This record gives sequence, structure tokens and C-alpha cells, in this order.
Amino acid sequence: MITLHTWTTPNGRKVPIMLEELGWPYEVRPVDLSRNEQHAPDFLKISPNNKIPAIVDHDAEGGPLAIFESGAILTYLAEKSGRFLASSGPERYKALEWLHWQIGSLGPMLGQLGYFAKRAEETTPAAIARFTEEGERLLGVMERRLKETAYLGGEAYSIADIAAYPWTLAATTFLQEPLAQALQGKDAIRRWLQMVGDRPAVQRGMAVPQV
Amino acid sequence: MITLHTWTTPNGRKVPIMLEELGWPYEVRPVDLSRNEQHAPDFLKISPNNKIPAIVDHDAEGGPLAIFESGAILTYLAEKSGRFLASSGPERYKALEWLHWQIGSLGPMLGQLGYFAKRAEETTPAAIARFTEEGERLLGVMERRLKETAYLGGEAYSIADIAAYPWTLAATTFLQEPLAQALQGKDAIRRWLQMVGDRPAVQRGMAVPQV
Repeated sequence: MITLHTWTTPNGRKVPIMLEELGWPYEVRPVDLSRNEQHAPDFLKISPNNKIPAIVDHDAEGGPLAIFESGAILTYLAEKSGRFLASSGPERYKALEWLHWQIGSLGPMLGQLGYFAKRAEETTPAAIARFTEEGERLLGVMERRLKETAYLGGEAYSIADIAAYPWTLAATTFLQEPLAQALQGKDAIRRWLQMVGDRPAVQRGMAVPQV
Repeated sequence: MITLHTWTTPNGRKVPIMLEELGWPYEVRPVDLSRNEQHAPDFLKISPNNKIPAIVDHDAEGGPLAIFESGAILTYLAEKSGRFLASSGPERYKALEWLHWQIGSLGPMLGQLGYFAKRAEETTPAAIARFTEEGERLLGVMERRLKETAYLGGEAYSIADIAAYPWTLAATTFLQEPLAQALQGKDAIRRWLQMVGDRPAVQRGMAVPQV
């Protein structure tokens, strides 16, 4: 059994999508960020950076294993299951490069846009402008890629798509109007959003945690 | 032979450090960011996000393989060589979670601090304050980890340390004074900086590219 500590944010949705794709049993422990539950001492032991998602795999080789960071968790689950990430060859590293692109660029830049546009007490136009512009640029990079290949890693659906889906969907909805507009002309991203979003496991994972 | 496209930035130094650790031959192609060479059409074919570092491994299985994103490149080189990342078990995923922590948090937050504090035309105190605070928080997370284990991934030096070293060193030097001060009391980080920085391969890698 896997225990999943998560919340209703784009990073929080990646791991339930993966677990639903695998069809593995898991129990959900909601970590309510609005009540600062990510700072609880018990959670810190599992997730030293105080961020969701984190998992504990009670059936890991050698005893229970706690893992934090969504990219590391997706890689762990892919390698344990042998699914959604090739075990070698170019397909593996194309998926890993787009996974790292999501972890290091798309996520942080849209996340900072969310902070400055939605959560900060003070309005900081220069920061909102910077992260809107970076978001638009990154969606342009993604559109060029998805014009060439069905999925981010290539012709196969992979953990790179699972990582990017909740953030790209967020860009079309709760984030800044300019980003939603920027997506209007991006037919390849829209096709990909539809194709990934039609997967039953993605729909189930996007509804976790239920609160 | 591996061709390495890189520049004199923290992200740019990770891959030469790894190649020096491996002792593999490589040729360096400097991509001068001050002259916007990352936007050259030929470079875009290798690195679709217009960022350094990127590599081309001319001897990859199945033909030349281009990889972008420093975390994906480090993982590729670790898996090809069988070094600096365990092939399975908890050691592997502890190293990968700290690698992803560097890619998704330490790098982007210090990178944005560098932008707002050093490169932006306009001074934006709210953004400088946010990224200084995030930088201090992340160095606190790292200090707690390095009080428990010799290296980020555990008792063995790994690609997590190679990824974090150039950024942590940057925090002690060219970044904001408050971050350098925050490091004064962080004995575990200082021990780790010394231990990693004493490695001859790290010293050689930090000098690439020579410009």
C-alpha cells in the first residue's frame, strides 16, 4: 500500500494521476495548505522541504520508503511498475528531459505567476509581467514540441505528460487572462490537453484529494 | 565523443563537473548568453527551450542523441556510466529527490533572485524580498539535511551534489548579501561546500567554459 500526502494543486495532482494509471491501491492524506498543515512536524519527516506531494511506499524493497518531489515520485513509480517511462534508449531520455523541463521551468514559472497574481498581498506589476511573459514563452516551446510529436516525450504517453498536464490546464483556467489567450492559437497543445484529459485515470486523479 | 553546449552559469557548470568526474572526453561549445547565442536556430534544434546546458552524445546507442535540461543530462550520464547514482533501492530515490529539489526549487528561486537583483532594469523590492526569503528557507532545508547525512542523497556523493554545488556556491558569492550572511551559521553546508569543492573534477568543471 502507498500513502499519498497531497493537496488540490497542480503539483498535488500529478501523483494521483500516475497511481490511477497504474491501478495501484493507495490511501490519501490531504495536507490542507490553507491551514498550513505542510508545516506539521510529522509531515516534515516525510517531506523535508514542507511541500506536497510526498508518498510512503510501505511495500518498498528493504522497508517503507518516503519520497518527496513530484518528479522523483513519478520516476520511482515508473521504474517500479515498468510503465510510462522507457527503461533505456532515446525514448527514456526524451521523456526525462521534458519531465525536467516541467519541474524546472513550467512549474516554477507558472507557480510564481500564481503567487504574484493571486496570493501576494501587494500587487507587483513587474513580477506579474515577467512570469506572464515566461509562461507565454514556455507554452510556445511546448506548442512547437507537440506539433512534432503526439506526446511530450515522443509517440508514447509518459510521466512527462502526467507532470505537465495539471500545470497546462491551470494556465488555461485560473491563471492570468493573457495566458489563456495565448493558448487560443495553440492547436497542438489543445489537441494534447484533450487527448490526455480524456483518459479516465487522468479524470480520476484530477479529483484527488476530495475535500 | 560528447559535445557540450554550455556557459559560465551555475546550470552550465553542472555537466562539465560530471564529465570531469567520469573522465570522459568532450568538446565544449560556448553559448554566449550575453550575445543571445542561445537563440541561434542551430542551438534551438538541440535545446528547444533555448537554455544551456545541452549535450550531443555522438556514440549513443542507436545514433547521436541530443539532450537538454541539466537534470536529464546528469541522469543520462549517470545511467550510461553506472556512476554517481545507485541503479536501484532507497539510495537511488534519495539522490533523485534531492536532484529534483535542486531542479525545481533551489535553482529557479536563486535564478529569479539573480534576475531581479542583478539583471532587471527596474528595481522590484517585493520580488527581491520574496526570492531572498525563499533562498534562505531552502538553505535552511539543505542545512537540516546535511546535518544528518554526508551528502544530499545520503552517504555517497551523487548527481544531487553535482547539481546543487554551483548554485550553493553562487548563494555564498554573487547573490544577495542576506544569503551570504544566512550561510555564516550553516556549518553543515559549509563542510559540504568544502568537501565537494576540494574534488579535482569539481575544480576543473567549474572552470568550463574558459572564456
